[in-house]
Amino acid sequence: MDVLIKDALILTQDARREIVRGDILVQDGKISKIAKSIRADADEKIDAKGKLAFPGLVNAHTHIPMSLFRGYAEGMVLHDWLEKKIWPAEAKLKPRHIRAGSMLSILEMVRSGTTCFNEMYIAHMDEVCRAVLETGIRASVGHGLFDLVKKTDAKDELKNGTSLVEKWSGKSPLLNISMAPHAPYTCSEELILLAKGHARKKSLKFHMHISETRKEVFDSLREKGKRPVEYLHSLGVLDENTVLAHGSWVTKRESALAGKAGASISHNPVANLKLATGGICPLHEYLEAGANIALGTDGTASNNCHNMLETMKFAQLMQSHLYWDPLRVSIQNVWDFATMNGAKALGFNAGSIAPGKEADIVLADLRSSNLAPLHDARNLLFSMHPGNITDVLIAGKPILREGKFTELDEQKIIGEAQEAAEDLVSP
Amino acid sequence: MDVLIKDALILTQDARREIVRGDILVQDGKISKIAKSIRADADEKIDAKGKLAFPGLVNAHTHIPMSLFRGYAEGMVLHDWLEKKIWPAEAKLKPRHIRAGSMLSILEMVRSGTTCFNEMYIAHMDEVCRAVLETGIRASVGHGLFDLVKKTDAKDELKNGTSLVEKWSGKSPLLNISMAPHAPYTCSEELILLAKGHARKKSLKFHMHISETRKEVFDSLREKGKRPVEYLHSLGVLDENTVLAHGSWVTKRESALAGKAGASISHNPVANLKLATGGICPLHEYLEAGANIALGTDGTASNNCHNMLETMKFAQLMQSHLYWDPLRVSIQNVWDFATMNGAKALGFNAGSIAPGKEADIVLADLRSSNLAPLHDARNLLFSMHPGNITDVLIAGKPILREGKFTELDEQKIIGEAQEAAEDLVSP
Repeated sequence: MDVLIKDALILTQDARREIVRGDILVQDGKISKIAKSIRADADEKIDAKGKLAFPGLVNAHTHIPMSLFRGYAEGMVLHDWLEKKIWPAEAKLKPRHIRAGSMLSILEMVRSGTTCFNEMYIAHMDEVCRAVLETGIRASVGHGLFDLVKKTDAKDELKNGTSLVEKWSGKSPLLNISMAPHAPYTCSEELILLAKGHARKKSLKFHMHISETRKEVFDSLREKGKRPVEYLHSLGVLDENTVLAHGSWVTKRESALAGKAGASISHNPVANLKLATGGICPLHEYLEAGANIALGTDGTASNNCHNMLETMKFAQLMQSHLYWDPLRVSIQNVWDFATMNGAKALGFNAGSIAPGKEADIVLADLRSSNLAPLHDARNLLFSMHPGNITDVLIAGKPILREGKFTELDEQKIIGEAQEAAEDLVSP
Repeated sequence: MDVLIKDALILTQDARREIVRGDILVQDGKISKIAKSIRADADEKIDAKGKLAFPGLVNAHTHIPMSLFRGYAEGMVLHDWLEKKIWPAEAKLKPRHIRAGSMLSILEMVRSGTTCFNEMYIAHMDEVCRAVLETGIRASVGHGLFDLVKKTDAKDELKNGTSLVEKWSGKSPLLNISMAPHAPYTCSEELILLAKGHARKKSLKFHMHISETRKEVFDSLREKGKRPVEYLHSLGVLDENTVLAHGSWVTKRESALAGKAGASISHNPVANLKLATGGICPLHEYLEAGANIALGTDGTASNNCHNMLETMKFAQLMQSHLYWDPLRVSIQNVWDFATMNGAKALGFNAGSIAPGKEADIVLADLRSSNLAPLHDARNLLFSMHPGNITDVLIAGKPILREGKFTELDEQKIIGEAQEAAEDLVSP
């Protein structure tokens, strides 16, 4: 299917970060040409006059089935919230719940300009993969592994990850499967090494929580004599295929280790603030060290949304706040984190509107009172909201057109999510 | 005009903070009845099935004409930004620019659920008042006074404020005029006392910036031997009609002084973060001291939007972060700040959906992927965005219906704002 987008203001996120006016030709799911004016016989023409085109956003850390718990039992301390509310509800999770929450989250992501996400969750992950293929979104999906909590054998636990790989790897160019050991405090050393070994063998991404809370750092020092990132380094699992979620409570030595390895960091500012971890990821230090910084929302239970535009604003503002310096991390940096860096972290050739790239493209209506006047298009990030987004293409396929889903039945999915949520949290 | 809103889920913000399902009857601009089912001959019936009704949000500190500078010259240090960009552009401000920026901001506010705002700006304030009456929004407006910067006589400068009062006070129940000396470092003691004297004589609100930056506190200590809030206290200008914008860099003694006086604090978290002031308003201390806490966006140049939903989320999350305690300030607190407290700060009988209150009511579509599923309606705040807002009534008059302005020509206003902005920032 060929698509021709006409007359857009294009925030290209190309190598020169150019902002140009013109047309975009999409062929076979990829961007084939960008020019002032393109004449071509496309299957679909999209009039983008008065609209901003930007690369689809990449949510580099989330747990999408948890949208069923959005706004459930707020205002509790973490421990009570998990023990009394979330774990009892999660114990009831059946495939239909995972499906319902996943479909809901995908709708929300597309509506807010996200075309790709990095998923880790704990049960019935086949349903997440099915939802990815059914909706046409792009994703990296891993089964969260944790033998220490379950008190299972590392080799048995590993199978949850490897069987997902066997079943789904290579099924679609839209879907990558990752190995996803949950965290250093929930996984044995054996499991971490097995998971990374399998990831290396199969050229998979390796996705893990790290250094989210100060307690985690203290416990790690006490039990292992090393801080969490030092510990992963000592295991030899840091490399350019490793995606570390959070990485907030780190020393300069640790950010340097991550950077030297070329690892990706998924920073989740909203979740960190909401859970009151007290730690803000030192993006500048990771940048200087050469790490690949991406951004994520984390699950809706700790956010409570999948709005990457909001996360991008939080990310920039929290760095300004942290360093008392509004220039430490720029708006341009944040666009990079959420587009090209995110795509790189997850192993997709996307994140720029440039020839040869995957055609993951979002259009926002500039004729909106919160986006006017137009001075520099990249600065619109700080006032844009999901209501401004009109069109979303993923791999060249229009998923959202003029504010409507082309194929997905939005109200049906929302209704099914409501039913599934009530089923889980009813007494 | 009578309006009957049918079948809403109502976040009342009444004395008991009830959330109920039912109908709302609006008569003569006021809420007259709330019940399970109301039969009445209204001029307009609004079907609110599947929608959340909440009191219109109050933006307790802003500079609305500055929306023309939204996204202009980001990424500069404050001093350069003001001297090289904003002040030269502001020097060109003519009435038509003030009008264009005001109209644009009012559109944006209504679309994001704000029905009332607290304004201070520096020129052609008649145009702001005209925009308020023309659009039907509710506002408290003051002419920002500053004799020290202008090097004018205090009595002459005062006239900017008093003449606005003479011209516009009592013109409409939607419009209050305030006295608005800019800040303790831009106003002489004489001007502050004259302004407060006039405010007391005419029963007006008194709106002033305070303790926004650490530098301001240091300078105040050096020059006056007192911290900024102590200084205002010593002048006797703190009382229940005083609205202090920011109040971030304060001691416990100062928050206690503000609380004891019954003053209002307008906290502007996004602007504080963006300008990297390093100070976060200690809401919990103000709450304990008995101050009336409200929230504002500040001007779009330091935000860059008038999205109060976003500001509410930032406010709660930053307190969680500041105290490493997610329960220090609750979501319910934040709803209070942005509704009833804001209305109280500005002197309007609004901020609750309760009989006798001004009918400033917002409807949001719950059949949205980012608002499902429904557990506790107040928690929807953390995932709601302006795109969810479908209807806005101010003083009982529908300004926005099903996502469309009933009378205002949105595209014309956006076009005029673009022209005005280009006029101001062209070389």
